[in-house]
Amino acid sequence: MGMEVEVKAYADDLKGIESRIKEMGAELAWEGEQQDTYFNHPKRDFAKTDEALRIRKEKNRNSLTYKGPKIDEHSKTREEIQFLIENPDAAGDMLVKLDFTPVGTVNKLRKNYQFDDLKISLDSVEGLGDFVEIEALDAGISEQDVTEVRDKIIALMDDLGLKKRERTSYLELLYPELK
Amino acid sequence: MGMEVEVKAYADDLKGIESRIKEMGAELAWEGEQQDTYFNHPKRDFAKTDEALRIRKEKNRNSLTYKGPKIDEHSKTREEIQFLIENPDAAGDMLVKLDFTPVGTVNKLRKNYQFDDLKISLDSVEGLGDFVEIEALDAGISEQDVTEVRDKIIALMDDLGLKKRERTSYLELLYPELK
Repeated sequence: MGMEVEVKAYADDLKGIESRIKEMGAELAWEGEQQDTYFNHPKRDFAKTDEALRIRKEKNRNSLTYKGPKIDEHSKTREEIQFLIENPDAAGDMLVKLDFTPVGTVNKLRKNYQFDDLKISLDSVEGLGDFVEIEALDAGISEQDVTEVRDKIIALMDDLGLKKRERTSYLELLYPELK
Repeated sequence: MGMEVEVKAYADDLKGIESRIKEMGAELAWEGEQQDTYFNHPKRDFAKTDEALRIRKEKNRNSLTYKGPKIDEHSKTREEIQFLIENPDAAGDMLVKLDFTPVGTVNKLRKNYQFDDLKISLDSVEGLGDFVEIEALDAGISEQDVTEVRDKIIALMDDLGLKKRERTSYLELLYPELK
């Protein structure tokens, strides 16, 4: 269990940003398609409680992720619990048996770059456009460190000219009726 | 997703049963400790609905399992959904965040033997004693085949002198207040 510190912004020129961060020394760590399916809780409405439960399918790995409510005005900082799973379809069947409701799916092409202790994700999201997400790599950040890490991420965002921040999730941007 | 056909019985002489099934040609497939932690649902009482949600920790693998209500008077036949997970402690933390309640833990030493298309488990359960469980290996059994498979399992049980059947789960035997 750890804190996820993450800032997201719209990107008009994803190729330009990619050249820029490569020049700065960022290294490509992963590239591929991600299919994220989100589920709502049987008893509470995650849109209201600002939580999320997600099954992520990738090329060679799949994961189940819980995200707690955002705890910060300026970023997407929140608690995150994630682990790899063998069979995402079985996981989906199980969640439905447990009365969780599938609410929507987000498909994107993602490139993850590593830059110091930050992860920079360049996302082309189906139906939404291009985005850059920057998050702290270490999942074990204490609450005290969150402000410092967030400020560092925001400074890098500013440096890259990524001014149009977006705190709303891809899911809610795609399915505004969930808000 | 498949049907689990399973019959369980008390065993007075586990060593004797083991010699007997080896003579019959059964082969040891797996041996080790299992720690099973069961969770109750946030909205319904699994003790009443006869369902189960379990995190299983083993030596080199961990799994998450959902079991549906038993659909047969004489065996433990029920729907089962199971998949491997990377991190059982994270899975437990996630379930608690999702308002599932841990209700109890079952520790046992298990030896799995393969015999034709059946799995024979010899269990020494902490606080309960020794048991034999026989189940069909193929998770894809159709509902039509369930009766046939169940009869085959029961014939083998009789043949091994395992007359004292038990439909109650280890969890409910250990925690009778859950019934």
